[in-house]
Amino acid sequence: MTERVREILSWYGSDNPGTLTNLARLLQAGKLAGTGRLVILPVDQGFEHGPARSFAVNPPAYDPLYHFRLAVETGCSAYAAPMGFLEAGARDFAGQIPLILKLNSHDTLNDEKDPTQAIHGSVDDALRLGCVGVGYTIYPGSALRFGMYDHLREIAAEAKRRGLVVIVWSYPRGSALSKEGETALDVTAYAAHIAAELGAHIVKVKLPTAHVEQPEAKKVYEKEKIPAGTLAERVRHVVQSTFAGRRVVIFSGGATKTNDDDVIKEAEAIREGGGFGSIIGRNCFQRPEPQAKKLLDGLMRAFAK
Amino acid sequence: MTERVREILSWYGSDNPGTLTNLARLLQAGKLAGTGRLVILPVDQGFEHGPARSFAVNPPAYDPLYHFRLAVETGCSAYAAPMGFLEAGARDFAGQIPLILKLNSHDTLNDEKDPTQAIHGSVDDALRLGCVGVGYTIYPGSALRFGMYDHLREIAAEAKRRGLVVIVWSYPRGSALSKEGETALDVTAYAAHIAAELGAHIVKVKLPTAHVEQPEAKKVYEKEKIPAGTLAERVRHVVQSTFAGRRVVIFSGGATKTNDDDVIKEAEAIREGGGFGSIIGRNCFQRPEPQAKKLLDGLMRAFAK
Amino acid sequence: MTERVREILSWYGSDNPGTLTNLARLLQAGKLAGTGRLVILPVDQGFEHGPARSFAVNPPAYDPLYHFRLAVETGCSAYAAPMGFLEAGARDFAGQIPLILKLNSHDTLNDEKDPTQAIHGSVDDALRLGCVGVGYTIYPGSALRFGMYDHLREIAAEAKRRGLVVIVWSYPRGSALSKEGETALDVTAYAAHIAAELGAHIVKVKLPTAHVEQPEAKKVYEKEKIPAGTLAERVRHVVQSTFAGRRVVIFSGGATKTNDDDVIKEAEAIREGGGFGSIIGRNCFQRPEPQAKKLLDGLMRAFAK
Amino acid sequence: MTERVREILSWYGSDNPGTLTNLARLLQAGKLAGTGRLVILPVDQGFEHGPARSFAVNPPAYDPLYHFRLAVETGCSAYAAPMGFLEAGARDFAGQIPLILKLNSHDTLNDEKDPTQAIHGSVDDALRLGCVGVGYTIYPGSALRFGMYDHLREIAAEAKRRGLVVIVWSYPRGSALSKEGETALDVTAYAAHIAAELGAHIVKVKLPTAHVEQPEAKKVYEKEKIPAGTLAERVRHVVQSTFAGRRVVIFSGGATKTNDDDVIKEAEAIREGGGFGSIIGRNCFQRPEPQAKKLLDGLMRAFAK
Amino acid sequence: MTERVREILSWYGSDNPGTLTNLARLLQAGKLAGTGRLVILPVDQGFEHGPARSFAVNPPAYDPLYHFRLAVETGCSAYAAPMGFLEAGARDFAGQIPLILKLNSHDTLNDEKDPTQAIHGSVDDALRLGCVGVGYTIYPGSALRFGMYDHLREIAAEAKRRGLVVIVWSYPRGSALSKEGETALDVTAYAAHIAAELGAHIVKVKLPTAHVEQPEAKKVYEKEKIPAGTLAERVRHVVQSTFAGRRVVIFSGGATKTNDDDVIKEAEAIREGGGFGSIIGRNCFQRPEPQAKKLLDGLMRAFAK
Repeated sequence: MTERVREILSWYGSDNPGTLTNLARLLQAGKLAGTGRLVILPVDQGFEHGPARSFAVNPPAYDPLYHFRLAVETGCSAYAAPMGFLEAGARDFAGQIPLILKLNSHDTLNDEKDPTQAIHGSVDDALRLGCVGVGYTIYPGSALRFGMYDHLREIAAEAKRRGLVVIVWSYPRGSALSKEGETALDVTAYAAHIAAELGAHIVKVKLPTAHVEQPEAKKVYEKEKIPAGTLAERVRHVVQSTFAGRRVVIFSGGATKTNDDDVIKEAEAIREGGGFGSIIGRNCFQRPEPQAKKLLDGLMRAFAK
Repeated sequence: MTERVREILSWYGSDNPGTLTNLARLLQAGKLAGTGRLVILPVDQGFEHGPARSFAVNPPAYDPLYHFRLAVETGCSAYAAPMGFLEAGARDFAGQIPLILKLNSHDTLNDEKDPTQAIHGSVDDALRLGCVGVGYTIYPGSALRFGMYDHLREIAAEAKRRGLVVIVWSYPRGSALSKEGETALDVTAYAAHIAAELGAHIVKVKLPTAHVEQPEAKKVYEKEKIPAGTLAERVRHVVQSTFAGRRVVIFSGGATKTNDDDVIKEAEAIREGGGFGSIIGRNCFQRPEPQAKKLLDGLMRAFAK
Repeated sequence: MTERVREILSWYGSDNPGTLTNLARLLQAGKLAGTGRLVILPVDQGFEHGPARSFAVNPPAYDPLYHFRLAVETGCSAYAAPMGFLEAGARDFAGQIPLILKLNSHDTLNDEKDPTQAIHGSVDDALRLGCVGVGYTIYPGSALRFGMYDHLREIAAEAKRRGLVVIVWSYPRGSALSKEGETALDVTAYAAHIAAELGAHIVKVKLPTAHVEQPEAKKVYEKEKIPAGTLAERVRHVVQSTFAGRRVVIFSGGATKTNDDDVIKEAEAIREGGGFGSIIGRNCFQRPEPQAKKLLDGLMRAFAK
Repeated sequence: MTERVREILSWYGSDNPGTLTNLARLLQAGKLAGTGRLVILPVDQGFEHGPARSFAVNPPAYDPLYHFRLAVETGCSAYAAPMGFLEAGARDFAGQIPLILKLNSHDTLNDEKDPTQAIHGSVDDALRLGCVGVGYTIYPGSALRFGMYDHLREIAAEAKRRGLVVIVWSYPRGSALSKEGETALDVTAYAAHIAAELGAHIVKVKLPTAHVEQPEAKKVYEKEKIPAGTLAERVRHVVQSTFAGRRVVIFSGGATKTNDDDVIKEAEAIREGGGFGSIIGRNCFQRPEPQAKKLLDGLMRAFAK
Repeated sequence: MTERVREILSWYGSDNPGTLTNLARLLQAGKLAGTGRLVILPVDQGFEHGPARSFAVNPPAYDPLYHFRLAVETGCSAYAAPMGFLEAGARDFAGQIPLILKLNSHDTLNDEKDPTQAIHGSVDDALRLGCVGVGYTIYPGSALRFGMYDHLREIAAEAKRRGLVVIVWSYPRGSALSKEGETALDVTAYAAHIAAELGAHIVKVKLPTAHVEQPEAKKVYEKEKIPAGTLAERVRHVVQSTFAGRRVVIFSGGATKTNDDDVIKEAEAIREGGGFGSIIGRNCFQRPEPQAKKLLDGLMRAFAK
């Protein structure tokens, strides 16, 4: 076990050895094993956006086994998906890669102004499928957010008692935020902090823009001259906002980019800003397999530096 | 046991041998035994639409025993109904045909824009009635859908623990969808995918039209030139959207058609597109018995090819 | 469904349709399907007598898959075994033959005068393994029998609620019986009756000798001139003692016989006396496979007459 | 993942992917990773024999951290101990080696003729400590064995539902066995078979002598000429008796030997006879650390061949 | 917080911060605060020996408030008693001294050869009374010990989940031990080890004599020349036997001694041997208050060195 992994584990003093063990499994799997950085393959787009929007551009990705194989062969740190996708391959790939069961999802068949998510998995499901942890999405900014926080509380308490890791997807959204505000620097930092306050071991947010949404926040950002000009600076601010870096923060890969270099550059900015890695779905499975493998390889090399 | 049945069972690696056994019973019953295809007789119209709308056209169908007998004599793969209809005949027909207990239903005594369903049966009921599985309807698109998904989670977890098969009726409906959108290709494929993600072993959807409802999806369908001109092509797309064919997808027969040939042609398109069969109610029990038997016989022959 | 199967099911009016369904599965499986007769392959000798005493004479039988295959290929009505043996093959053979989970067993590592059995399986295990029923042994005559009856009561109540069949191995044994008394006619008939009174759907006893053990019984057997000269007569008496034939009574094959004809003759006597079949282990798996298959074939033909 | 590990996992078709994942972790840890063989360090002697008898000969072994370190540094497949010993180091060594929580133990402060064990840990404890599985001891031959089997049933059912591996220490003991009989070939094979029937994924027994204890068994061993002259032959017989090698059987190292070669020779016989490895405590921690490491290194090399 | 307290807390890596907090409260209370040593006043003699035998010699001690006051005024680390005694003063003395609820006790109204204890308090009681921990007695050596271990398992699991400290009184007793054996060096060390294996945070044993009870142990003590000549050497052996000093071991004061010096000398031996303190009842409350205070003052000074 590397010093860095030991250091990261040391931040989780209120967790039991079971949760530390599963966190260590995550930090010691795949190509980035031991570096303290993570690249996770998440495939919940089918549920969130529909199958054609997710997979038609690369039809082999309709097959749930495709993603298991892609994650294993590229040396990802973990593979995260909702129950159906995990159930379809968990026996065939048992013991080959850490799994994360996504416990809730939103679908886009009804476009609510203040969205929430359906809970469609449990801690018991995570155990029977051999997962190292559970994933849960919250929508800070939605009028329904407090119900989501409350469910998370129950799920996280059970997960921790049973030695699992809790990963929170924190996605600002809802009637109180402008579209631009959803990825604003202040809002992203706030959302990451809330996830950590709710007990997340690992926090996932989107990469923030330089926009600052909330007027009261804006005054502070300007007065304190919080550096936000570069992506690395903004990542650093989010990491700092998440318990001064004492919680693992990873960033989502966002919509598909045609240019690999853009993805790699983002990874370098995440690394430079002290981020812990990427959770990158569409930019992987929406490329043909050879290109996805090439991109993931580049990504890992960027994070391994 | 045929190779095809073996292959289908191999897709369900996270299920216990009990569920595999009941899935095998379903796949080895009736005239289509061993083909990997299913024709299921569902009779929940009485609950969903009212008795006169359902049965007045063929009065013997008011009698619950009529449907058991029809399903047995025509060699259906299974008979599916709500609790009362099953209770009325389960002793008399015990061991003669696989049964599926429909656990929830909607009625049309109050026509909500965003409908949900009443849960009126349990996994325990399914066991005491000798069923191979439970059926559950979701309404993707309804504002109340997430509550339905959450209930399904609980029911499916218990059903799987006790070795039953979970069949999900996935019917897009609700304020966010146009009437045409309820059977749109994109929406149908999406609804089938969601049911599979929620852990369904068997997914039932309506046959899709070529209409594409969601603007974001439309871009993809056009750009990727997803073939949708023939019914077989659309079935193929739905099957692909349901875990690349690694989940059993069957199609509902829809409203009563006067012409048998139309029903048979649909079956041929389902078969050609890689679908796993039909779940056909009104086109059976709303015909006089001899005609219903003739139609079912033709249907089975179409699927047996 | 044959008239005979219908008639048998009609005897179980207090059972729910789930139990009738599983009983029907048993009566409609294998070569004797529909005849109302059963040949069941039980393999609990490994637990009861030890592996070498059970399998060394025919070493392929050490492998749990051997027995599944033997039962399937010879068209047995069911295969019965303790949990480990069933777990080893239940996925591979799912849906190919009705399974019975033996819930308790005795071992011969400590030879108690008044034996009892260890409970090593549950109704939940039977459901997750896809069994049609559970098997349970009682030792009428043992000082500990009432504890065994009491456990059976709990297990049978749960099994019946969940739609399973209850098969009771009723083996007189204990300090109150002579060695000869364990297979005495009066004791065997008494043991079969007790099993039926305890709620067994199917009762398994040993073939009785003409010996009458209990003095009080002896007076009646003599006074009433109960016919006991032939094996068929004795079988008839046991069947009559088990609710006048309104419960399925099957007979164990006993220790290995070298002569196939002896086994076949016993089967003919069982049939002639109105018995419902055999549950025959050692005489199957302690023969080389070809001879076992030949014997089972002969047995089925004897019962099919 | 090696072919051998895949093959071993394929034997456990009734287990969920969670249990397969933990079994894979065990088979993929330490120096023997991927070989399908295991060397496990168990330290329950302190509880079973008392601390001075266990550790005085090598005083650093009084410290629970010593054993974690020894197991990690020598590349053992797992470390097994009762709750206190695991609690003392589980945080410090989280993620460094698979752990097995011993759930019951006997102490020698009261020397019963028919011993049983105290249950002092739970499946919940195993999860909070991050274990891959639970260990449980049975005493076939004890008058109290059936109670132990029954407890094991409950514990194993819960462990399997939660994705843990069940390892059974099967140690014949009790008033019905002679001292020599406790390690007799027939008794050892019988004890291993019973553990597997009770649902153990991994069975641990002592290395058998050529003695055959039970008269009924003796007749069979002689008649069938079961080879028992060499240790490898006896191991082969035990492995065959444990579901024809479809369950992982490992052998205990027994009392301390002064000569390393004797231990290595036993390992070679285990390997030659098709055994899956050793679970070796006293011969490790009762040697000074350098000698223990040298011995374990030799042991692993013997098994890696 | 002193370095020594920090070090002691570091041994309990599998416990949650709640338990560490209560352990720290114990280690930071009274005159010995911060030294890593403890003097606890226990008053369960009323239950164990009867009131007159316990209190008649110093009648103010009949009053439960007397003991609270004595413990507070003398600067004890904690006060331990059964439920009734604690309930009588917990409000009046709330916040003045750490409390330990004794959860089980034996009474001497029936003198069994193989004693057990009555459970008369719960973890909930400890919480409502504001206790830092719970006390539980086991009798290693009793034929009934395994039942006591099993109850302790349940209680300790709950106490730890709720952040309480678990203190185990480990008193060898029962038909398998001679009277002398109850305080034998080997037996005391064994009893302390078992308590730690069962998950105790703090272990209480009697001061051992130089007698070695068990023949198998005697061989080891002689061969390894375990020093046992002085009380300090024997304490050191017991502390070593309790996880090499990584668990807090304290020693009971035993029967009333007339000479204060004897008590002080024992304390000095405990300190010299690395013991963590005393739990001293009769020598306190069976002396008149001024003498008790004087003795406790001397005791604390001996431990504070």
